[in-house]
Amino acid sequence: MKLKDLGEFNFINRINRAIKLSGRVIKGIGDDAAVLRYTKDKYMLFTADMLVEGKHFHKCDKAVLVGKKALSCNISDIAAMGGSPKFAVISVGFPGSLDLKYADELYKGIRKSADSFKVDLVGGDTVGSGKIIINIALIGEVEKENLTLRSGAKENDAIFVTGNIGGSIKLKHLNFTPRLEEARFLVKNFKINSMIDASDGFLADLGHILEESDKGAAILEKAIPVSKNASRFDSAIRDGEDFELIFTLPERQADRLENAWLFKTRLSRIGQICNGREGLSLVRKSGKSEKIKPAGFTHF
Amino acid sequence: MKLKDLGEFNFINRINRAIKLSGRVIKGIGDDAAVLRYTKDKYMLFTADMLVEGKHFHKCDKAVLVGKKALSCNISDIAAMGGSPKFAVISVGFPGSLDLKYADELYKGIRKSADSFKVDLVGGDTVGSGKIIINIALIGEVEKENLTLRSGAKENDAIFVTGNIGGSIKLKHLNFTPRLEEARFLVKNFKINSMIDASDGFLADLGHILEESDKGAAILEKAIPVSKNASRFDSAIRDGEDFELIFTLPERQADRLENAWLFKTRLSRIGQICNGREGLSLVRKSGKSEKIKPAGFTHF
Repeated sequence: MKLKDLGEFNFINRINRAIKLSGRVIKGIGDDAAVLRYTKDKYMLFTADMLVEGKHFHKCDKAVLVGKKALSCNISDIAAMGGSPKFAVISVGFPGSLDLKYADELYKGIRKSADSFKVDLVGGDTVGSGKIIINIALIGEVEKENLTLRSGAKENDAIFVTGNIGGSIKLKHLNFTPRLEEARFLVKNFKINSMIDASDGFLADLGHILEESDKGAAILEKAIPVSKNASRFDSAIRDGEDFELIFTLPERQADRLENAWLFKTRLSRIGQICNGREGLSLVRKSGKSEKIKPAGFTHF
Repeated sequence: MKLKDLGEFNFINRINRAIKLSGRVIKGIGDDAAVLRYTKDKYMLFTADMLVEGKHFHKCDKAVLVGKKALSCNISDIAAMGGSPKFAVISVGFPGSLDLKYADELYKGIRKSADSFKVDLVGGDTVGSGKIIINIALIGEVEKENLTLRSGAKENDAIFVTGNIGGSIKLKHLNFTPRLEEARFLVKNFKINSMIDASDGFLADLGHILEESDKGAAILEKAIPVSKNASRFDSAIRDGEDFELIFTLPERQADRLENAWLFKTRLSRIGQICNGREGLSLVRKSGKSEKIKPAGFTHF
C-alpha cells in the first residue's frame, strides 16, 4: 500500500495510535500545537511546520516572503491555541549552488516575522539538499485559563471566522499576517470554546473542530466571507492556507464580541454549532439547506 | 556568490550576526542546543536536526534505523549540554508513492529511540516531497549547575572522548546510541568544563570547543581511539557523525574519572587544553608534534 492510498489524515491517525505519552503531555498530536506541563499558571505549546520547494512555494517566489511564511504559519498555530510564541529553531536544506542572496533574503523574511511577533530565533540546522526545505519548530506558552483546543465546541455556540476565505494561492498564502493579536484579544476577553487556524481549507478545518468536539454545524453561504481572489464559493471553502481563525463561543457572547471588535481584520459570524448527529449543513443563498462533507487540501 | 563558496560555518556565523535576542535567551546559535530561561533551578534546551535522503541516509538503508538516527542525533545534542531530553515534534516530507511499510518502519525507529530515552513524541507536520526528509525538534532541560557549554574549556584541562572515532559511514552513523547516560553521569559527578557531541568530525568538533573557549590543545595520536571501520588515522579524525562526546575537565579530576567509569562505552584521555595562542597540535606516534587544522565535514 502506498501513502497516497491511505491519505494524510489516516496516516497521522495511524502514527498517533502507536504513540504512548507520559503524564507531562496534556495534548499530543491532533491540535494546532502540543500542550505540555510547564509552570503553575502556564502550559508550554510546541509546534512545527515544514515547507518544501515546489509544494509550498516555488523558486520564483520572493525569498523574503517564503521566509516570512515559514515562521508565520507556526505563529498562526500558537495563536489558534490562545497562546504567545516565544522561541524558534530553524532547519534549512539548501543546494550548495544556491545564491547567497536568496538565503539572506529568506532569513530576512524569518527575522521580519520574528521581530513583529517577539520570537527569539535560537538555533537550528543547516544541511545540503537538492530542493530548498525550511522547517521551523516553535515553542509558545499560554495561561492555563486561556488554552483553547479544537475539541471544546458546545451546542448552540456561534461560529466565527476572521478575514476572507479562499484564493490564497494568488499571494496571501505567502504574505499573510498571523492572527495572533486577534486570538489573544479573543481568549482574554471571551469564553472561546474552540479555535483552529484555517490551513487545510475552511471546510476541512471547521470539520476538525466538529470531529474533535463530536458536534455538527449549520453554516450560511451568505455569511461566509469569500476573498475576491477565489474563483467561486464552492472552491473557496476548500482552498488551503487561509491562515485565518475559525472559532466558536457561547451564543450569548456573540453580540458583545461583534461590538467589541476594533481590529481592521474582518470578523464574520457564519453559523452555529449543533448536535453531532446532524453533521455539517450549508444553507445556500436560496435558503435551501444541504449536507456537505468537510473535505479540503491533503498533502498526499 | 554561491552558498558553497561561503561555506556552511561562515554562513551560520553570518545568520547569527544578524539576529538580535531577548534576555530570555542564555545561549542562542553556536552550541549543541539553545539554552533558554525556564524555572528557578533549570534551563530549557532546544535543538533540531534535519535528515535528507541521499545526504544523511539512502533509500536502501533500513527505515527503522533512519528513524532511530533522526531522534538519536537530537538526543545526542541535549546530552552534550548536560541535559535530559523531554519533548519532540517530528516533521516528515514523504513522496505520495512511498510504501506505507517504509513510513511505518521509520516511525517505529523514532518510537524505539523515544522509549529508550523517555522522550514524548507530541506532534509535528506531514507534507508531500520528492525526497524523504525528516526534521525532529527536541526540547530538553538541564539543572542550572549541570549546564555544559562548548565555551568553558580551561588551560590544563584533560581532554576525553567516549567510544571510537571514524568510519561511522559503515553503519554506526545510522545505528548509534546517544551518550545520554554517560553525559548525565559526567555532569552530576565531575566538573565538566566543556562538552560537545562529535557530529562534524572529531577534529572539527574539538575545534569548536577551542574556538568557543579561545584555547588551544595538544592531542596524542597514540591515545585517540580509532574505530576498526576507519580506513586510517588521518581520515578517522575528520570523518563526520561519530556521535561521541568530547569533553574537558580539570586535570586533578582525570584519574578519579578514569577509576569511576563503569560504562561499557570506552573512555579515552587524549590530550590537554593549552593557551589559545598555541593552536592545536597533534603528537604523532613517533613523538613528533605538528600543527593541525581543525577541519571536518561541511554540508556545502
